[in-house]
Amino acid sequence: MTRMAHNAVKKTLVAVIATSALLASSAFAADKVYRLKLAETWGPNFPVFGDATKNMAKMAEEMSNGRLQIRIDSANKHKAPLGVFDMVKSGQYDMGHSGSYYWKGKVPNTLYFTSMPFGMLPAEQYAWFYYGGGMELMNKVYNPHNLMSFPGGNTEFQMGGWFQKEINSVDDLKGLKMRIPGFAGEIMAELGAKPTNIAPGELYTALERRTIDALEWVGPSLDLRMGFHKIAPYYYTGWHEPGSELQFLVNKGVWDKLPADLQEILRISMKTAAYDMYIQAVHESGQNWSLIKTDYPNVKVKNFPPEVMDALRAANDKLLAEHAAQDPLAKEIQKSQADYKKKVRAWTDISTKAYLDNEAE
Amino acid sequence: MTRMAHNAVKKTLVAVIATSALLASSAFAADKVYRLKLAETWGPNFPVFGDATKNMAKMAEEMSNGRLQIRIDSANKHKAPLGVFDMVKSGQYDMGHSGSYYWKGKVPNTLYFTSMPFGMLPAEQYAWFYYGGGMELMNKVYNPHNLMSFPGGNTEFQMGGWFQKEINSVDDLKGLKMRIPGFAGEIMAELGAKPTNIAPGELYTALERRTIDALEWVGPSLDLRMGFHKIAPYYYTGWHEPGSELQFLVNKGVWDKLPADLQEILRISMKTAAYDMYIQAVHESGQNWSLIKTDYPNVKVKNFPPEVMDALRAANDKLLAEHAAQDPLAKEIQKSQADYKKKVRAWTDISTKAYLDNEAE
Repeated sequence: MTRMAHNAVKKTLVAVIATSALLASSAFAADKVYRLKLAETWGPNFPVFGDATKNMAKMAEEMSNGRLQIRIDSANKHKAPLGVFDMVKSGQYDMGHSGSYYWKGKVPNTLYFTSMPFGMLPAEQYAWFYYGGGMELMNKVYNPHNLMSFPGGNTEFQMGGWFQKEINSVDDLKGLKMRIPGFAGEIMAELGAKPTNIAPGELYTALERRTIDALEWVGPSLDLRMGFHKIAPYYYTGWHEPGSELQFLVNKGVWDKLPADLQEILRISMKTAAYDMYIQAVHESGQNWSLIKTDYPNVKVKNFPPEVMDALRAANDKLLAEHAAQDPLAKEIQKSQADYKKKVRAWTDISTKAYLDNEAE
Repeated sequence: MTRMAHNAVKKTLVAVIATSALLASSAFAADKVYRLKLAETWGPNFPVFGDATKNMAKMAEEMSNGRLQIRIDSANKHKAPLGVFDMVKSGQYDMGHSGSYYWKGKVPNTLYFTSMPFGMLPAEQYAWFYYGGGMELMNKVYNPHNLMSFPGGNTEFQMGGWFQKEINSVDDLKGLKMRIPGFAGEIMAELGAKPTNIAPGELYTALERRTIDALEWVGPSLDLRMGFHKIAPYYYTGWHEPGSELQFLVNKGVWDKLPADLQEILRISMKTAAYDMYIQAVHESGQNWSLIKTDYPNVKVKNFPPEVMDALRAANDKLLAEHAAQDPLAKEIQKSQADYKKKVRAWTDISTKAYLDNEAE
C-alpha cells in the first residue's frame, strides 16, 4: 500500500466513522425516550377520571412509538391529592391531573376554569375554551406559576344532590347541613345553609346517620356506586356545576424541553382524552341512571322551586361581583364567560332546548 | 503498514461500513414518509367541514414529524363530490371526508351513521359510537367494501329550515315545495310535501323567486352566509338531523400498510378533528345566530305545532319499519340506536333539559 493509498483509506475511514456517528446520534435522538411523571388527585382506578389519565398516557405512548412514556401516580402513591398544583409547579412531578377550582385558596382566579354556578354546559364551555378566548385566559392565570393548564375531561352535568327532605322554599335551606364544597358552598351559606366538606369515604354514613341532611357528589356516572339513592329519596336537578372540566397541568420547563413532535403528541393526547372523558361520562350517566331507576323506582327527581333558584342566582351574582371588584383579571374572566354564555345559549335554546322540549311533549 | 495491520484496518472499515449501513437503514425506516391522498365532498375552503380535514392533516403531519403527509383534494379538483365512497373503495384515493348518508342509494345501511330524524343529539350519538356499539355496527356496514369509517365531525344540531309561510297544520305541508334531501325528504313526501334537491349555489335564487317555498340547509353556522334570513321570515326548529356526524373513510389496504404508530396517529387525528369540528360548529352557530338576530331582528323562530310533529314521527316510524322488515342488519342498527337513545335521553332530560328549562324561566 502506498502512503497515498494509505492516506486515502484513512480519510475514508474517518469520513465513514463521522457519518456513522452522525447517523447514530440522529437515530438515538429520534429514539430518545422521554419519561414523564404525572400526579393525579384521584385514588387508584378511580372510575372515569382515572380512565382519562390512562387513556392520555396510552395515546401518547402509542403515537410516539414509545418515545413518550408517562407514569401515573395516583393519590395513594404521592399522598397529596390536593398538592398537585405545587408538585407540578416545583417540578417534583412533570404533569398533573386535577380540578382547577381546587386551587382557589391559593390562586383565586383558578376558580373559573372548572364550571361556574349557572354557567355553561360542557359543549358551550369547550367552545369558549377553544374558540372564545378561554384557553388564553386560563393560561394568563397559570403561566406565572410555571404551569400550563389544559382541559382534562368533563364530568358532564352535575346533579344538585341527594336530599332527605323536599325543598319547597328558601326557608327550608336555613340550617340545612349539606356537603357542598367550593363556591357553590359559599352560595348556599349566603342563603343560610350550613355547607360542610366531608371525605368521600364517609359520605354515605354521614347521610345515613343524619349527620348531614343532604349532599352533592357528581351525577349518576359516579353517584350509583356510592349508594346515596338507597338512603335519600330526593334527587335534585343541578345548578352549581353544569359541566365540570378537569385539568391537565404541565410544568412549563418540562414542556419546553420536549421536541416539537412530542409536544404536539402530548397536546393532542390530553385534548382527546378530555373529549373522550366527556363522552364516557355521558355514557356512564345514561347507563347508571337507568340502573338506579330500575332498582329504586321511588327515587324522586325534583327541581328547586323558582323562588329558591332566584335566591341562589342572586347570591351567586353578589359573590361574583365581590370577586370582580377585588381583581381586574377576575372581572375580565367573568365578563368573557358571561358574554360568551349569552351568545351561545341563545343558540342552544333554539336548537337543543327546543328539540328536547318537542321530544318530551 | 504490515499486511496484518492492513487487514485489521480493512476489517474495521468493513465493520464500520456495515454498522453505518444498518444505522442508516434504521434511520431511513423511521423517516419513511407516507403520503396519503384524501378526497373531500366539499368545495375548496368550505367553512367548518373543510376546516376538519385541514385540522386532521395538520395534526397527523406534526405528530408524525412529517412522516405522515395527507394531501387534501376538494371537489373542484376530483370533480366527484358524491364519488368519494367509490374512489376510496377502489384505492384511487386513500382517504375520504364526506357524509355516510350520501351512500344510502348504494349501501342502504350507511343511512344510519350521520343523524336520524328524532334521533340522538351530538354528545348522545358520540356516546353511542364509542361506548354503545355504534363503531362496531358502522364498520360491519363498511368493512365488506374494503373501507373503514370513522366519525368525521359534527355539524351540531340542524334547524328545520327557512319557510316563506307559517306551518300551522299538516295541511299546510301538502304541496309545499321544499328543498330537503334524503330520508327527511321521504318523510315530508309521506305528508304530501314535494321534496326536491337543488344545488347549493342555486338555493337562494330558488327561494327568492318562489321556485321553492322552503328549504333546510344546516343551521346558523352555515346558513348566515347563504342569506336565507333576508328572504324567508320563519326559521323552524329542527327534528330531522339533531346532530349530523360527517365521516372519514380510509381504504383498508392503505390502513393495513401503515406502521402501528402512524395508524394510531391517524386514528387520533381523525377522532380529534371530529370532536373539534363539533365544538367549532357550536361556536359558529352561536356567533352567527347573534349576528342574524342583530341584523334581522324580525326573523321568527317557530316550532312546528304538535300535530305536525306527531305526523312527522308517525311517517318516520313507518319508513323505518319498512327498512327493518327488508334487512336484519338495518333492524339491528335501528334497535341499537333506539335502545341507546331511550337510556341516554332519560339522563339528558334530568340534566341538560331540566337546567335549560330552569335557566329560561
